[in-house]
Amino acid sequence: MRRLVVNCGQLLTMAGPAKPRAGAQLRAAQPVPDGAVLIEDGLVAAAGPRETVLRDPRAAQALVLDAGGRLVLPGFVDSHSHPVFAAPRLEDFERRIKGQGYEQIAASGGGILSTVRGVRAAGQDQLAEGLRLRAALFLSCGTTTLEAKSGYGLERDSELKMLRAIRQAAAATPLELVATFLGAHALPEELRGRKQEYLRRVCEEMLPAVAAEELARFVDVFCDEGFFGVEDARGVFLAASRAGLAAKIHAEQLSRSGAAALALDCAAASADHLDLLSGEELGSFAGSTTVACLVPGSNYFLGKPYPPARGLIDAGAAVALATDFNPGTCPCWDMRMILSIACTQLRLTPLEALTAATINGAWALGLGKTHGSLEPGKQADLACFDAEDYRELPYYFGSRPAAWTMKKGEIVHALGSLAG
Amino acid sequence: MRRLVVNCGQLLTMAGPAKPRAGAQLRAAQPVPDGAVLIEDGLVAAAGPRETVLRDPRAAQALVLDAGGRLVLPGFVDSHSHPVFAAPRLEDFERRIKGQGYEQIAASGGGILSTVRGVRAAGQDQLAEGLRLRAALFLSCGTTTLEAKSGYGLERDSELKMLRAIRQAAAATPLELVATFLGAHALPEELRGRKQEYLRRVCEEMLPAVAAEELARFVDVFCDEGFFGVEDARGVFLAASRAGLAAKIHAEQLSRSGAAALALDCAAASADHLDLLSGEELGSFAGSTTVACLVPGSNYFLGKPYPPARGLIDAGAAVALATDFNPGTCPCWDMRMILSIACTQLRLTPLEALTAATINGAWALGLGKTHGSLEPGKQADLACFDAEDYRELPYYFGSRPAAWTMKKGEIVHALGSLAG
Repeated sequence: MRRLVVNCGQLLTMAGPAKPRAGAQLRAAQPVPDGAVLIEDGLVAAAGPRETVLRDPRAAQALVLDAGGRLVLPGFVDSHSHPVFAAPRLEDFERRIKGQGYEQIAASGGGILSTVRGVRAAGQDQLAEGLRLRAALFLSCGTTTLEAKSGYGLERDSELKMLRAIRQAAAATPLELVATFLGAHALPEELRGRKQEYLRRVCEEMLPAVAAEELARFVDVFCDEGFFGVEDARGVFLAASRAGLAAKIHAEQLSRSGAAALALDCAAASADHLDLLSGEELGSFAGSTTVACLVPGSNYFLGKPYPPARGLIDAGAAVALATDFNPGTCPCWDMRMILSIACTQLRLTPLEALTAATINGAWALGLGKTHGSLEPGKQADLACFDAEDYRELPYYFGSRPAAWTMKKGEIVHALGSLAG
Repeated sequence: MRRLVVNCGQLLTMAGPAKPRAGAQLRAAQPVPDGAVLIEDGLVAAAGPRETVLRDPRAAQALVLDAGGRLVLPGFVDSHSHPVFAAPRLEDFERRIKGQGYEQIAASGGGILSTVRGVRAAGQDQLAEGLRLRAALFLSCGTTTLEAKSGYGLERDSELKMLRAIRQAAAATPLELVATFLGAHALPEELRGRKQEYLRRVCEEMLPAVAAEELARFVDVFCDEGFFGVEDARGVFLAASRAGLAAKIHAEQLSRSGAAALALDCAAASADHLDLLSGEELGSFAGSTTVACLVPGSNYFLGKPYPPARGLIDAGAAVALATDFNPGTCPCWDMRMILSIACTQLRLTPLEALTAATINGAWALGLGKTHGSLEPGKQADLACFDAEDYRELPYYFGSRPAAWTMKKGEIVHALGSLAG
């Protein structure tokens, strides 16, 4: 099937070099006025100025979709989220406002382990249905690919249940889900003080089972003070590598643990959070294929200092932006909101932020060659917003759904009529 | 016409004492599970637990609207905005990100005076149509009453044009617009260095004309360093009082000017911004009928420190929250986003924030007896969100339109089908 999207008032293709280099990309990704996108069998056939695209003979037989002069860009690639859970953590939210700290909240039954209890008690169908409903919210905001982590099971069967729920939901939603096994998210209550025993189970019992069912593309480790150390993470990465899973890591969020250096050393797909990164560490990402994945929505939600995004970009790092959607520290599925935070609080330019939310997000998932920009042969994942200028995306903040979202050439969300 | 809203999974009536006292109100406004609202001729006839409301004989003849187990609360009353302008200020936004200050931005043709040039050049119809379109966005986010200021004309005819555009838009949208004359917003370019001459025009030429056409309910003054001083504001208030307009003031935003004290002294309806208020000034609002109207969206957008909301509430002030929607410093029409900022950054509890966005917003507009809560005889202005718990409103942030919005008993925005 052929489709031709015309009358894109502004088209951002985010086309760029075929490796994760943020700096070089930014300057190339200028908006095209009066753009068009030709799509064949779910893939981009051509994207650019209308007159160029219409010259393609295939355009003559395509079904036309009029974007009505609106902004069209690649669907967002959200490369860090924890979207599988049973219930929001509203009590924690209110307790934190009232000044209670992490310890107090955990002592009164809240915190991450309360989500673990909820996930352990839930059935796979319930978790899958919850994720399917959330997927519709992501799609409504223009996100077309979402990384989804396990990590609220913390025992073999519950971790597998989460990953199977992700696979089940993926079959029921057009949102593309990329699964990550995060067994090493926290120590389960029943193994308090027995970290090595738990890590043994992660590496020897869970990882092989995850790999056997091909349930995840990545492994992730929460590498921070009070959780897992750099050597723990190295051990998990080694076991994951044997099982065929690539690496991601939660790094330098609560303490300077050396996790970012480990990520670079292991050529991880991404090092995430990076709140406390500084000085020469910033430059160490330049020339690396490891993407610096920032999740400033969690800093906003917790009222904590923001990661050094400006420093990373200025030092030549490839920076991705992700929601970190999760019930404890970032209940936000809207990449446009993350763009707003990135521009107003982290001082990224709108084009830097959009690069981080599309092509660099794709690189953070190892999908840079097929996702994240509108170039011939790539997936036709598009988002259309009722805006005349791409800078309106981070400028206006608060509620504003995408006009429509397209996944692999098919409309998967539309606000009202599709008529221009 | 009678309407009965049933199956409100949670109903927040925000009922409270008949004067602006935030502290006392909060504890009374507990959510009602399985609530109902009976509406007659656009007014609330009864609101509360289903069994209580259904006992009313009028309920038997009412048209039933099933809220589907969702959250229902009073429509937001947004008591501070500048929604009449010709174009967003995207260049300023990008320049600020790149580190340019107010002076630099103004020197390169940006800043408030660029909006003034746009408004002066625009026709009344164009301004009214822009406002009508924006009003739909406010309604989609659950706002049912919006204060709208002039202040981008800065000359008699342009100020009158703005206020007439507000009146024209008000006739074309269900959003209730409350007009405020803000002639004393800034000094126009052509009168640089001639502040007294401009103030004379505001008081002697503009105010009487505004009053003659009954174009505004309030007068407002931007009382800050580099703009207008406390004695200037007192003069404008005096003239406004003679013309029958009540007072509001932009206070303590960029400098400690004494504007808040003037507001209390003059029994202004509200003192707005208050970023730099501190110490005993906080307590001076307690027992006053002047509402402390906070607009933390502008602090967020500019990356500036937040106002002392916690201190004001703890000292007994009646605090309102408003968007400050405007093209330069807060392009946000979504009160739910302001609730999020209030809870995560200002440490208001969800109930305090909702009080501030409904009944206290109404008091800030002198409408506390008719708007802002669901009590017999008040306007039936309701918002319904797809949430089980009112704390979800500030908890989830980013895009999430209201399920439906009702103004004076009529549905004025609905997302998809109204079926529960």
